[in-house]
Amino acid sequence: MLAVTFQEPGRVALEERPEPEPLAPDDAVVRVESAGICGSDLHIYHGRVPIAPGFTIGHEYVGTVIAAGDEVTSASVGDRVLGAFHTACGTCFFCRRGVYQKCDDTRVFGHGATLGSLQGTQAEQALVPHANLTLRRVPDGLSDGSALFAGDAMATGYHAVVGAGLEAGDTCAVVGLGPVGLCAVMAARVAGAARVLAIDTVAERLDTARSLGAEPVHATEEDPRAAVKAATEGRGVDVAIDAVGVPSALDLACRIARKAGTVSVVGVYAERIELHMGIVWIKALKLVTGHANVIGHLDSVLALMASGRLDPTPLVTHQMRLDEAPEAYAIYDRREALKIVLSA
Amino acid sequence: MLAVTFQEPGRVALEERPEPEPLAPDDAVVRVESAGICGSDLHIYHGRVPIAPGFTIGHEYVGTVIAAGDEVTSASVGDRVLGAFHTACGTCFFCRRGVYQKCDDTRVFGHGATLGSLQGTQAEQALVPHANLTLRRVPDGLSDGSALFAGDAMATGYHAVVGAGLEAGDTCAVVGLGPVGLCAVMAARVAGAARVLAIDTVAERLDTARSLGAEPVHATEEDPRAAVKAATEGRGVDVAIDAVGVPSALDLACRIARKAGTVSVVGVYAERIELHMGIVWIKALKLVTGHANVIGHLDSVLALMASGRLDPTPLVTHQMRLDEAPEAYAIYDRREALKIVLSA
Amino acid sequence: MLAVTFQEPGRVALEERPEPEPLAPDDAVVRVESAGICGSDLHIYHGRVPIAPGFTIGHEYVGTVIAAGDEVTSASVGDRVLGAFHTACGTCFFCRRGVYQKCDDTRVFGHGATLGSLQGTQAEQALVPHANLTLRRVPDGLSDGSALFAGDAMATGYHAVVGAGLEAGDTCAVVGLGPVGLCAVMAARVAGAARVLAIDTVAERLDTARSLGAEPVHATEEDPRAAVKAATEGRGVDVAIDAVGVPSALDLACRIARKAGTVSVVGVYAERIELHMGIVWIKALKLVTGHANVIGHLDSVLALMASGRLDPTPLVTHQMRLDEAPEAYAIYDRREALKIVLSA
Amino acid sequence: MLAVTFQEPGRVALEERPEPEPLAPDDAVVRVESAGICGSDLHIYHGRVPIAPGFTIGHEYVGTVIAAGDEVTSASVGDRVLGAFHTACGTCFFCRRGVYQKCDDTRVFGHGATLGSLQGTQAEQALVPHANLTLRRVPDGLSDGSALFAGDAMATGYHAVVGAGLEAGDTCAVVGLGPVGLCAVMAARVAGAARVLAIDTVAERLDTARSLGAEPVHATEEDPRAAVKAATEGRGVDVAIDAVGVPSALDLACRIARKAGTVSVVGVYAERIELHMGIVWIKALKLVTGHANVIGHLDSVLALMASGRLDPTPLVTHQMRLDEAPEAYAIYDRREALKIVLSA
Repeated sequence: MLAVTFQEPGRVALEERPEPEPLAPDDAVVRVESAGICGSDLHIYHGRVPIAPGFTIGHEYVGTVIAAGDEVTSASVGDRVLGAFHTACGTCFFCRRGVYQKCDDTRVFGHGATLGSLQGTQAEQALVPHANLTLRRVPDGLSDGSALFAGDAMATGYHAVVGAGLEAGDTCAVVGLGPVGLCAVMAARVAGAARVLAIDTVAERLDTARSLGAEPVHATEEDPRAAVKAATEGRGVDVAIDAVGVPSALDLACRIARKAGTVSVVGVYAERIELHMGIVWIKALKLVTGHANVIGHLDSVLALMASGRLDPTPLVTHQMRLDEAPEAYAIYDRREALKIVLSA
Repeated sequence: MLAVTFQEPGRVALEERPEPEPLAPDDAVVRVESAGICGSDLHIYHGRVPIAPGFTIGHEYVGTVIAAGDEVTSASVGDRVLGAFHTACGTCFFCRRGVYQKCDDTRVFGHGATLGSLQGTQAEQALVPHANLTLRRVPDGLSDGSALFAGDAMATGYHAVVGAGLEAGDTCAVVGLGPVGLCAVMAARVAGAARVLAIDTVAERLDTARSLGAEPVHATEEDPRAAVKAATEGRGVDVAIDAVGVPSALDLACRIARKAGTVSVVGVYAERIELHMGIVWIKALKLVTGHANVIGHLDSVLALMASGRLDPTPLVTHQMRLDEAPEAYAIYDRREALKIVLSA
Repeated sequence: MLAVTFQEPGRVALEERPEPEPLAPDDAVVRVESAGICGSDLHIYHGRVPIAPGFTIGHEYVGTVIAAGDEVTSASVGDRVLGAFHTACGTCFFCRRGVYQKCDDTRVFGHGATLGSLQGTQAEQALVPHANLTLRRVPDGLSDGSALFAGDAMATGYHAVVGAGLEAGDTCAVVGLGPVGLCAVMAARVAGAARVLAIDTVAERLDTARSLGAEPVHATEEDPRAAVKAATEGRGVDVAIDAVGVPSALDLACRIARKAGTVSVVGVYAERIELHMGIVWIKALKLVTGHANVIGHLDSVLALMASGRLDPTPLVTHQMRLDEAPEAYAIYDRREALKIVLSA
Repeated sequence: MLAVTFQEPGRVALEERPEPEPLAPDDAVVRVESAGICGSDLHIYHGRVPIAPGFTIGHEYVGTVIAAGDEVTSASVGDRVLGAFHTACGTCFFCRRGVYQKCDDTRVFGHGATLGSLQGTQAEQALVPHANLTLRRVPDGLSDGSALFAGDAMATGYHAVVGAGLEAGDTCAVVGLGPVGLCAVMAARVAGAARVLAIDTVAERLDTARSLGAEPVHATEEDPRAAVKAATEGRGVDVAIDAVGVPSALDLACRIARKAGTVSVVGVYAERIELHMGIVWIKALKLVTGHANVIGHLDSVLALMASGRLDPTPLVTHQMRLDEAPEAYAIYDRREALKIVLSA
């Protein structure tokens, strides 16, 4: 079968790979019909994730089950399915508490040996371990391009909002309107935010946010702190989301959150940063951080997508073929795309 | 000033009453411009609440502040305001925990001596004690008929849903589509319910529920339990709301809730009932009950109404004049109205 | 091997049974060294649970792993272990939410065909399916008689308290001082209840409760409602636990809970009952009900037992041999014992 | 009356001041019998808090009500009372949510004009505004030295633990064993922590922690990270508390917390710091920060102190007279005392 593989920083290639076979009784094999390219793929593309040349990449996918072990009950052969971007064992200390994203045995698709040596999903087929937790049937009526968001960006947007404890009637601000930030805008709306302020510097993204029901705020041409004050009787928002992962975004999120508010950090951090802890502390902020609990949120996200209440299709800017992956990565790397879907 | 007073079971009258004056530093006096008639008013009308003849009734209102004590900060003279249906002291054991509806010193407008001897709001003016907790400015753009829901039925619908812990993506069923039930439908939608099943026997109410985004289920011509099963892969809903207050409604709510689900009881109970505790227990249901925490929810409800996300105007079926109150009560008693607003 | 089997109402017998073998990769076989007799065993003994003659009964146990499938990681051959009274699949809708007690595929040890056809643990050996979820190593220093509480009565007492949301400083009342009620007393103390009132009619049980730090209240010779009032400035307790499962216990729990308090119902209900819903509703009580989430609580309960903060040994009134089971059941049926441990 | 006043950095003085009189209906005047010196007083002593010379300082106190406005119901003239270190209005956005520590109108005793111009409690008398929220009767049997902890350090220790969501059976580590850290140790024990690791460099404090049920860990002579690993099967603690307020303490807390654990920051921060956000994020930590909700916790803390379950008396190292305040501050500044109580 054909697979998109990492070669060296800045270069991916299409290569022939052996078809996977289910090994454990809860394994499934999926014929991938659509696979997404995501911001984390770019980290791999740039060589910032240690990964062997020739390793298949990608972790977002929709497809059809073509083989399944005896214990797989979440889907049957022939079912159209989508999956989370990682697996979880289901029985470790963290899984027993439902914190699937911190499973002691988690494996991330397409991220090389350090994250579990699990071949990626930008391929014609993919092996899916622990399928009962990571795999779900696609509800009727969802397009591939929409469904593959459920296992990654949309579940992350949902996590940013619901994991922060947003209640209907709260105000919310989202800093950064990439795919995750825009998904957070959608999730905040669907969870009942009375007002959602969406902050970025890219006009198209601000327009998309507006069309999703948010109030766009240009991060540099406007004054986001003043805009938040004006929208909240001077108080700040109940929930501020850092969907970027750079210190200035976190700083802004801390400044626009109200006293005793929550700052939800779904943007990725890997380093030491300078943080104005004095502001955090005197405002008694709560910070919630880390990867989204995608497996934990899959049912809710899919139910909302099935009912039409969450619809990420406006975020799909490019539909390409799997064998166009090298070009797709180049486009994505030039930031010309919000979401690229590679189809078989 | 003119006031609607209870006379005897089945009879209310317009009577002249002295204008109220603020006594305590946190009292306000409101010139009432619109007052609602609510289901609890009907209990008074029928003599089921002990209340002296001549007592002013009514507890929903919108109006303008015409006098305020020194410590009133929630509104100023001249402000257009609405209020909760009851007061709370702000400092007792229960208020300190934010459980304002169970304040040790609560007083309900227009409910006679047993509930605090606080004259009602179906009058040209009303005295509002502890105005900082019970009074709020009406956000721009809200009609009277809409705003007065915030202090009673809409806050109760919100409580039914948010107090039950509904999360975005959950399924919800509402048993009983009176004003509170329909407000619960709206609140469930706004809080992110993926599907809302709305159960009643009255065609108009089912139609209204459908127009609000719910899936209507006729309680007797259809099979509500089968409808819920079909909508939830056989599991039952995450949150089932009893918005009626009769044993058969509670029984149905318990049967259509999923295992470990929540039954939210905003319908009023005053008596012993027979309950199938075996079903409750084996399904590990959680029951949340009692009056809504209207004061606790006012900010959120108003924020949602101000942003247009909650809009109770479709529930206002009758606009009448205050001096038509006797006729309005007769209409309401014949169940010809969903919500009657009396305007000055 | 020898096993205690149900024969007919009022009669159990020792019978020879084939030794179990692990079938699935997450099965384990345990050589049972101690097994408890529990209140639910009495339901079986009296024929109130449909179960075939010859079925092995019992569901509390401590022992040593003598065989384990490839995927068992919670314990190794040779480890001393204890187990929950039931199994859970780990991947269904309910398990994914950590509500293991309502697993769609749960099987209860020793309860016959209707609860999963899983042979009981009052035997020399037991097959333990899904061992990664239900089996745990016994912490050093715990006796058998103590450890076997973790998988049933102590986890239930913990659930009664922690599942009700008791916070340090709250007041708690426990109605019914059987093993579960006394475990709830211990759990309430360990979770920080400022005062625990323990209500029963049996002097020995009241004495035991006192020795565990509770304030004993005789249910009929004293006035429990007055005692609770006196202990709570007239308010009622924050958490009232029904550890009996009869309507009068639930009624008392509802009456002694404070407004907006929680009634935690771990006593078993199977039937319709009469409930004063008027009291429940006007007090805005929350009812939490159902089987304990034993698997969910096992880690915490064991950690507390390992540190000596929970110690159920005072509840073990009888140590007998497995082959004395018929006599043990007769003793237990005469209510002469609190907890009987059968050892190999 | 005599009062301890700030003069200049490093110097406090006893001065004569007029006796306060209640002005508002919810004011009380307390004859102070004991007042504590606290770490924040040292900030004032060193001139790090802007405060006018001659301003009365101090914010911990126990005494007797000698005058009370008409609306004061929390205590009567003649009652022995204690108070929170700050006031709250009871009706602002934050008070309505029970977040009293972030009241828009809060005033802190003895902290000068920027924190509300409220004269301090290290004086013979003190004016207590909003007495219904900040004042409580001292339960029978509590010494002054014990009771005055309830309104400050003990409520903060309680907040550190309960505000972090610690559940019975969790493990906890406390970094820094000053009065607040030792109170957190006590609170963690009382809230059911299975194990409490107490980390500091001062032998006496480690000994005190041991006597309170914790496992002492010397921060530099031992390896705290290794000690935590050994105590938690390598996982880290469920709740790590920074009770110091310096970056190295926060860093350690983040490193010893388990994945998806909570870091509770009650140590005070006022500045920018460097934080290893990569560790925070990849571990999906939750950070809860800020002043304790003393008013919100007072009832629970007092109930636990009244029942003997929380007892801060071991922390009182010095009992001195009010007129020895200058010497007391010098002793405290030399870090020779844990808690100094000044009595009239």
